Amino acid sequence: MNNINRVAIVGGVHGNELLGIYLVKKFQQDPQIIARDSFDVITLLANTQAIKLSKRYIDIDLNRCFDSEDLNNSNLTKYEQILAKKIFQQLQNSQVDFLIDIHTSTANMGMTLLLSNLLPFNLNLAAYLISLDPTIKIVYSQNNGDGNRLRNVFQYGFTIEIGSIPHRVLDPIWFQKTETLIINILNYIELFNRGKIIYLPPEITLYSSLIPINFPVDDRGQLMAMVHPSLQGKDYCELHPEQPMFLKLDGSNILYQGSQTVYPLFINESAYWEKNLAMYLTSKQTIKIKQL
Amino acid sequence: MNNINRVAIVGGVHGNELLGIYLVKKFQQDPQIIARDSFDVITLLANTQAIKLSKRYIDIDLNRCFDSEDLNNSNLTKYEQILAKKIFQQLQNSQVDFLIDIHTSTANMGMTLLLSNLLPFNLNLAAYLISLDPTIKIVYSQNNGDGNRLRNVFQYGFTIEIGSIPHRVLDPIWFQKTETLIINILNYIELFNRGKIIYLPPEITLYSSLIPINFPVDDRGQLMAMVHPSLQGKDYCELHPEQPMFLKLDGSNILYQGSQTVYPLFINESAYWEKNLAMYLTSKQTIKIKQL
Repeated sequence: MNNINRVAIVGGVHGNELLGIYLVKKFQQDPQIIARDSFDVITLLANTQAIKLSKRYIDIDLNRCFDSEDLNNSNLTKYEQILAKKIFQQLQNSQVDFLIDIHTSTANMGMTLLLSNLLPFNLNLAAYLISLDPTIKIVYSQNNGDGNRLRNVFQYGFTIEIGSIPHRVLDPIWFQKTETLIINILNYIELFNRGKIIYLPPEITLYSSLIPINFPVDDRGQLMAMVHPSLQGKDYCELHPEQPMFLKLDGSNILYQGSQTVYPLFINESAYWEKNLAMYLTSKQTIKIKQL
Repeated sequence: MNNINRVAIVGGVHGNELLGIYLVKKFQQDPQIIARDSFDVITLLANTQAIKLSKRYIDIDLNRCFDSEDLNNSNLTKYEQILAKKIFQQLQNSQVDFLIDIHTSTANMGMTLLLSNLLPFNLNLAAYLISLDPTIKIVYSQNNGDGNRLRNVFQYGFTIEIGSIPHRVLDPIWFQKTETLIINILNYIELFNRGKIIYLPPEITLYSSLIPINFPVDDRGQLMAMVHPSLQGKDYCELHPEQPMFLKLDGSNILYQGSQTVYPLFINESAYWEKNLAMYLTSKQTIKIKQL
């Protein structure tokens, strides 16, 4: 593949996720941190109105507005639908060929890279980052049928998902860790562009096939159960068949009825409360890294 | 003092703090959990409109609307101002003489009791609860000049503040711990009403004098610094003079300029972001318990 020529670092796709917003502000104040010789870096605060109000979105979730059909549909006039077209146009005009989209989660996601594809460059970069920090998790996630994310419109790059961080909290510890992660990403791209050979682990762990699981509700749509205490904060841990999944208000358990062990993610994510979504289930696999 | 005859357990004063809302719903579904022989217990979901929308409030913070002047001012017509009057009237008509108001914090507050006064009954109860769970913290907090809280209109009882829990997250582990705490409170009142002598620790630790500390901003009101990483999650820990308090975006530190050691609370509380409030500073003292 060709060199990476222009990287975009995006924060504030969701206006109440402060980490990405203030990382971008820091990079804008001090561009030397992200400057590299072999490529340009641009920064973008995405949902400026939502950022002003510290809200996830104004009309609809911006990060579900990047389906190519929607980007070409002039009948879509909600604030985020129009904004998605502007952002897409801006990044295309700037000839961005690698995207970092910074998000936070209230779930215990640690440092997660959400990949839209398994292109060798993305996997090599993921393996490099894991070699520096083995706690980093890699998730392969397409659009789940509910609208394309910003990351879906780029071949190279990914969403960074950091947590747990409550909304409207600027967590300084995660701030520093995420700044280091981004510096490491930029360093890798620099090494790649210069043709340097980097030793990578021969394989990495991949979580994929995100299956949404809703909270149990009664006939009137009222919540009947919460996430089981044994699952709270246990993102990326094993959930076995017949293991408790939800705790009903009456004290009884609802068990996981699947036939194979899965790995739940985004457990009790605050932003999914309005969608009644309790968690996603993934499967875990090992994937070989073909060194570029 | 007389017996306690009627206890109110209130959830949802803030509509996005799910713990209290669902504890009250559980108690309403299964009143036997909170029934005791010597007194009545009523339950209340306070801000029903905000609960529906999973928002902290509709117009203004309900938990700053309980000044007696405001409760008697018929010119105040915002949603929460009218609601505060209704709630006050309802609890007064019910002759409630002990209040438990359940809240959550995104800060690392653990299980905190916020007391509006230091009446012997409240301190005896606090000491009893600490004897069962030494991690419980006691904070003496009047209204800080920004409007009375619901707890301020009752002599007996307190606010329970549980965290860290993100807004719009029903945390099952804290749910169970808080249910136990409430059961212990009711058990104490039952023992007190029956004249049983309860062994109490001779003294307890009290945090008081809440001094609000704002985030540093520049001339244009833009945030210049975040909470220092060494303070994140360190609620109730010592902050010494000259110790770092904020980390500026340029990487430099802002030091704590006070002349004595303090104990910060509500560090990086999400609900205070809109007020630019970074934390409260408290002093720590030991207070003797005069057994009733």
